[in-house]
Amino acid sequence: MKRSKIVLVAILVMLLSACCDKPQKLEIMNTGIEPVMGLGEPISANFTGDAWLKMLSTEPGYDCNVYNVTFAPGTRNYWHSHSIGQILLCTEGVGYYQEMGQPARRLVVGDVVNIPANTMHWHGAATDSRFTHIGITPRVNENATTWGEPVSDEAYEQATK
Amino acid sequence: MKRSKIVLVAILVMLLSACCDKPQKLEIMNTGIEPVMGLGEPISANFTGDAWLKMLSTEPGYDCNVYNVTFAPGTRNYWHSHSIGQILLCTEGVGYYQEMGQPARRLVVGDVVNIPANTMHWHGAATDSRFTHIGITPRVNENATTWGEPVSDEAYEQATK
Repeated sequence: MKRSKIVLVAILVMLLSACCDKPQKLEIMNTGIEPVMGLGEPISANFTGDAWLKMLSTEPGYDCNVYNVTFAPGTRNYWHSHSIGQILLCTEGVGYYQEMGQPARRLVVGDVVNIPANTMHWHGAATDSRFTHIGITPRVNENATTWGEPVSDEAYEQATK
Repeated sequence: MKRSKIVLVAILVMLLSACCDKPQKLEIMNTGIEPVMGLGEPISANFTGDAWLKMLSTEPGYDCNVYNVTFAPGTRNYWHSHSIGQILLCTEGVGYYQEMGQPARRLVVGDVVNIPANTMHWHGAATDSRFTHIGITPRVNENATTWGEPVSDEAYEQATK
């Protein structure tokens, strides 16, 4: 009788321990080291904070580049514009997109942004979440990017609060 | 003593039941109803089996359409070609891509396919896995698709075995 109780308690402890692992495992699946299309290499030019870039397709005949960008929490790129525009497909975490003079748009998984031509804007992660989007530059041969100033901490805080 | 044993057994049953839910929940996260960019609406023309299409970006100025295609297990599209080509970004499950006269390529999450111009091919799911890819049609205004015959069951089985 006593032995069976000890066995039961031991099984209980094992099961409790297994169940306590659960949230951790789910978190790894949600914010895992590798985004769905891969992480790529660190990039720093024109970014405030840590970011990674993975080129996915640069076939010359397509005149269209495709790549994956991952922003660490708090990271954003500088103000910039594209002469034809850019498409963002949000695949992980929470981020923001802001056009100059407009309120920021909060982005979650599944969101699509069609960035208009010649419009100063930035995109990046929320303060508390890694953020990944696929980026598509259509008509790449004539689609020029113009980089501006960093997004100040004050402007970023205002946009993401 | 007996009562405490009953309580322990009751807790054990509860925990076992909770732990039995675990694989089911993980499976939902892996092959959930909604792919990362959404499921969209059923499509049937030029497909063998069940498939869903969600348009993501069709901005005329970009000359580049972006969409999500989800194939039920065993589903594939008909043989077809694009006059400029197409980009596939694999985001869920296991699938196949085959060019006419070539062995099929097995596709997993993170894979990219640059489909060459004027090349007869098909893509679709594995027999035992749902499969989702983002599709990008660059230079869409001049990128004509030519549809051919369905991929026969024999050809599909041969390609995916």
